[in-house]
Amino acid sequence: MRTARFAAIAALALTLPLAAQEAAKPAALAPSEIVAAAPKADWVAIPAEDLLVMTLAPDADGKPRTVVIQLMPAPFSQGWVHNIRLFARAKWYDGISVNRVQDNYVTQWGDPNYDNPEATGKPKPLPEGLKVMTEAEYVVHATEEMLEQHLNSLVGQVRIASRDLRAATAAEEGSESVEERGDWRYSDPYSLSVGHQKGWPYATDVKTLWPTHCYGMVGVGRNYSPDTGSGAELYTVIGHAPRHLDRNIALVGRIIEGMEHLSSLPRGSGALGFYTAEEAGKRTPILTVRVASDLPTSEQPRFEYLSTESQTFATYADAIANRRDPFFIVPAGGADICNIKVPVRRVAP
Amino acid sequence: MRTARFAAIAALALTLPLAAQEAAKPAALAPSEIVAAAPKADWVAIPAEDLLVMTLAPDADGKPRTVVIQLMPAPFSQGWVHNIRLFARAKWYDGISVNRVQDNYVTQWGDPNYDNPEATGKPKPLPEGLKVMTEAEYVVHATEEMLEQHLNSLVGQVRIASRDLRAATAAEEGSESVEERGDWRYSDPYSLSVGHQKGWPYATDVKTLWPTHCYGMVGVGRNYSPDTGSGAELYTVIGHAPRHLDRNIALVGRIIEGMEHLSSLPRGSGALGFYTAEEAGKRTPILTVRVASDLPTSEQPRFEYLSTESQTFATYADAIANRRDPFFIVPAGGADICNIKVPVRRVAP
Repeated sequence: MRTARFAAIAALALTLPLAAQEAAKPAALAPSEIVAAAPKADWVAIPAEDLLVMTLAPDADGKPRTVVIQLMPAPFSQGWVHNIRLFARAKWYDGISVNRVQDNYVTQWGDPNYDNPEATGKPKPLPEGLKVMTEAEYVVHATEEMLEQHLNSLVGQVRIASRDLRAATAAEEGSESVEERGDWRYSDPYSLSVGHQKGWPYATDVKTLWPTHCYGMVGVGRNYSPDTGSGAELYTVIGHAPRHLDRNIALVGRIIEGMEHLSSLPRGSGALGFYTAEEAGKRTPILTVRVASDLPTSEQPRFEYLSTESQTFATYADAIANRRDPFFIVPAGGADICNIKVPVRRVAP
Repeated sequence: MRTARFAAIAALALTLPLAAQEAAKPAALAPSEIVAAAPKADWVAIPAEDLLVMTLAPDADGKPRTVVIQLMPAPFSQGWVHNIRLFARAKWYDGISVNRVQDNYVTQWGDPNYDNPEATGKPKPLPEGLKVMTEAEYVVHATEEMLEQHLNSLVGQVRIASRDLRAATAAEEGSESVEERGDWRYSDPYSLSVGHQKGWPYATDVKTLWPTHCYGMVGVGRNYSPDTGSGAELYTVIGHAPRHLDRNIALVGRIIEGMEHLSSLPRGSGALGFYTAEEAGKRTPILTVRVASDLPTSEQPRFEYLSTESQTFATYADAIANRRDPFFIVPAGGADICNIKVPVRRVAP
């Protein structure tokens, strides 16, 4: 006996599919084509100080395997980022290995004898000068500038389930509602709202902001609270975004080249995907990890990201949410933050 | 000059973090512990007719590799599921291979000489009796029974950005709003609402329902519209859920065992992750694909899924959205549909 309820639902449904109404338009550019056409001015150079070059042992065919990690800039996670540069410069990471590969979750590397249920030897001593962070540092305080930027971005305009916020916004800007603007489509089940700033995805509860656990993001392994990890153990996400880890672990960067060398490794059969003692031979050796700025200039890799503050990025995000390139028949009408990957490209030195 | 706006936002933020307010409670069970404690009656046997056993060539160490696929039951995608059983029973899949592995996207298998930019031979003829489906069959009509079930489920109670729907619901059920119930936390950027029924995740616009492209789901490769694919080419998701494919491709099942044999394969270096002609040796041979009900009874694998209509499942989903087991310090307060994986277990014959 819920006929009235269903009728109300059905009436609502007719008003919602904004994207579907536009589906008759001619096929538009694919997101990758929009990125390819971005003006040079929309690309931002990544400082060499923010790039880590991690060299794995060659693969079974003898091919070299190099992974490039972009470290997160301020204001996020700077204590851990400090430590990671320190570990790299102390050459502490040289000779560690990939010890854990858990399907649809993470690939993790570090000292195989530290905090590993399959350890057989003694952990190596940590370098001097490491910072110790509190759990409060998993998030940053939202400044007025950051909120302003958030509200001005395409994706950041979305506030879920928020009559009060909508009312407050409408009073200032006029009567157009979030639904009428179609902005419900970037809603996020893990936060009040999500967005991108300075090349990175984040979520917010308006009081704080925190980076999001998307595919390829790099985080800091830790023990039980209140431990927050030093940076000796790192992992990257190799499956569906484990967003429940947001605000529970420090994120420090992302893989921008060579991800396949970490995502396609054999899964470990021990607890949590650790390689068992019998599988010790599957641990991929990490030969060296270097801060790019410490390499000879000619060997420094150079990368750029597409400015998340550019019009090109807004157009790109909209195209991801409303695919109309030839393969697609029904644009989704929305996208989640982890499917709006910030484009990064390698450029000639 | 948006101080008033920020004040309104900040006031709202104080009212939202329901989960955070509860964080002081003692540590609760982890989702896996809730599943382990489920009563036997909450587990539903998967019919042998819905199980495909796919045997890959042994790995480099000579270890056997078996993948088990659960086919999707009615009402979803039944034309394609019909075809897939037909392909299997015609032994058409025997001798095909994995031809494409694209990082953070899909692993795809089929005839290496069909619709493959790297093909070098002639495609094998298709069996007789294949059905041809229209694009309308990517979704199913939402019956009153399905909507009733949807509205009664924990996750399905969420309707995003929907004042009208909320008002309609409130009029019938009292004044408690979606925010007050905390149900905004399962919102979905790709649909009006998501849920699980009969063991499968789906999204809905209230008029129709469709299965969702989560990690491990199996879909049907196709050419440009209006082609909808026959089932000769199949793929599985090996990265972050590409939900923009929902309603654009038929989903027909999911990997319930042996996923690591498909997710950890070397990525192809050709366009879209196809193995190039030079990499033809990386194509993993598929030896056989059998419908489990065609195997001798003693060889039939047996699996069960946790009833998505059970109280255990609702408790499990809530625990995923609000992790309070010892590792966690901040419960997310929400979860996306692809992180609420339906538990499946192998049982003794």
